[in-house]
Amino acid sequence: MSQITHVPLARLEQTVTDIFVRAGMTAEGAAAMAETIVAGERDACKSHGIYRIEGCLRTIRAGKVRAGAVPVLTTDSSAIVRVDAAGGYGPGAFRCGLPALIERTRALGLAALVINDCTHFSALWHEVEALTDAGLAALAMCPSYATVAPAGGIRPLLGTNPMAFGWPRPGPTPYVFDFATSVTARGEIELHRRAGTPLPEGQALDAEGHPTTDPEAALAGAMLPFGGHKGSAIATMIELLAGAMIGDFNSSEALDWLGTTALLPRHGELILAFDPARFAGGRADPLARAEGLLDAIVGQGARLPSQRRFEARVRARADGVALTEAEIALLDRLLRDGSDAVA
Amino acid sequence: MSQITHVPLARLEQTVTDIFVRAGMTAEGAAAMAETIVAGERDACKSHGIYRIEGCLRTIRAGKVRAGAVPVLTTDSSAIVRVDAAGGYGPGAFRCGLPALIERTRALGLAALVINDCTHFSALWHEVEALTDAGLAALAMCPSYATVAPAGGIRPLLGTNPMAFGWPRPGPTPYVFDFATSVTARGEIELHRRAGTPLPEGQALDAEGHPTTDPEAALAGAMLPFGGHKGSAIATMIELLAGAMIGDFNSSEALDWLGTTALLPRHGELILAFDPARFAGGRADPLARAEGLLDAIVGQGARLPSQRRFEARVRARADGVALTEAEIALLDRLLRDGSDAVA
Repeated sequence: MSQITHVPLARLEQTVTDIFVRAGMTAEGAAAMAETIVAGERDACKSHGIYRIEGCLRTIRAGKVRAGAVPVLTTDSSAIVRVDAAGGYGPGAFRCGLPALIERTRALGLAALVINDCTHFSALWHEVEALTDAGLAALAMCPSYATVAPAGGIRPLLGTNPMAFGWPRPGPTPYVFDFATSVTARGEIELHRRAGTPLPEGQALDAEGHPTTDPEAALAGAMLPFGGHKGSAIATMIELLAGAMIGDFNSSEALDWLGTTALLPRHGELILAFDPARFAGGRADPLARAEGLLDAIVGQGARLPSQRRFEARVRARADGVALTEAEIALLDRLLRDGSDAVA
Repeated sequence: MSQITHVPLARLEQTVTDIFVRAGMTAEGAAAMAETIVAGERDACKSHGIYRIEGCLRTIRAGKVRAGAVPVLTTDSSAIVRVDAAGGYGPGAFRCGLPALIERTRALGLAALVINDCTHFSALWHEVEALTDAGLAALAMCPSYATVAPAGGIRPLLGTNPMAFGWPRPGPTPYVFDFATSVTARGEIELHRRAGTPLPEGQALDAEGHPTTDPEAALAGAMLPFGGHKGSAIATMIELLAGAMIGDFNSSEALDWLGTTALLPRHGELILAFDPARFAGGRADPLARAEGLLDAIVGQGARLPSQRRFEARVRARADGVALTEAEIALLDRLLRDGSDAVA
């Protein structure tokens, strides 16, 4: 039986920072990466945790992201804050733009952060929570690479295009959702392939554009959007707002540029931030009003999104993150060899 | 067989304006109502066409909307334009705020129109198209009254909460979607009840919160959100942003205030507008980039949303709106008797 080590969050964050500095990133960039990845581990989102490090290093090694990039912030008197990630990773670019986004949102009531030319890998919930921590509401979205067919279509064109929303609450945790606009994730289809089980109906098309429940055929074909034509429309909106509108890649262009789905995609991101106090304009307290609704949801036995993450977070803050021997060994190896450690 | 009369759009708009002036509305308010309703007829959205007039008059007669309300516009140097509809109908309030919303969006890149205390009945696509006509992108949303259970819940709490998005295109028509975040509409359930046919699975709960395909039980129970927990999260976001945040009713409060779903609901509305040129910040032309994506969607045989509306619009502009004898008689009666014509 594998031994489990509980690693305190701060120590894990330092280790992951050291790995990315070792791989050529700036201190700020590496710290932002580590914060994001450790937040994934902390919240029991293993798919966004230390598992991601190898893929990040592999993308550096493939020359598809600039490890040492220094993001460039541009602000003016408008509602748009812009960060040129200069071909680097997203988390450092987000951290670079965050203070200005908060300042503009407080000044104008509503503002947007545009991140261009970044390589994206983080969960958007981590970003919207940085805004709910500041008492703001936030809506974040980005394209991905083309793996999803539009409703009524036959071929991959849209990305899994995640959308995340956060609303500040008086208690310790905000209201947060974060989901892909595809009905499922490629990783889920891969699990069905390995298990030899069919997919549920309505998740995928084969390479000829016909509905399939065969995971092998689905991986060679396309995923479908969630919620039929409505989800497809939302995924398209994300391509338009967080791709075309910000002058950056849509999911199809991102895949063309990268040439593979085995590395992390390069594109932009759009984050809208709202100051509830400014929007309420002196009418009833918006946070108190919201509590009534959220309490009523819980009151009829429905769960709010992100609750599992928040429960894991409490445990991780108290006890540290539980890592296996293999995970500890992986971190040691990545720390020692940097991006040479990955193929 | 019923005789069909083709009524030119301008003449129909004048008739509907006259009906609402006769019912006590201001000239501006009545004209905005008529424009919205005739746009519904023009686009073959009969459910938002002249059929709506009786409900509007009935809500006036019930004292649940102030026919003669004059909306009050508040602007400042922020990104938020606010219109107090003063208890009146939405279309006049929207028209009152539109020029300021366009001005703020051009000035800041991003701006919002908040409408408070309005009675809402119009399709949101008509509003987002007013912004695409100005070369802007737009995202509009509002609560409704509580008829939808949250995913995992058992009782009506959320509204059908529509969301509409518009993106300007170089050709004659924009990219526009507009849908309810419920999986179906109450009207559809009512049609199943009349036809004696069961509902598809996954659309509704009975009064005890159990899944049902019996339309009668569904009407006494709750509808479900589209797309499972993802659609439920979006419907909740709409309650938070376009209800609590703007200091206005959520769908539950709207139903409590009104006491019935037989009249039109009172609540607020939130419209975000984006200037693509400002967001692109001198990078590639956002409208040209978007065309590549939209052409690729059509190129694989998928339809863009709203195409049926746009096709009907071309016909109506050329030939007028086709009305039955019964519809013509209804308009005559409403014009003669005003809100006295309805129970």
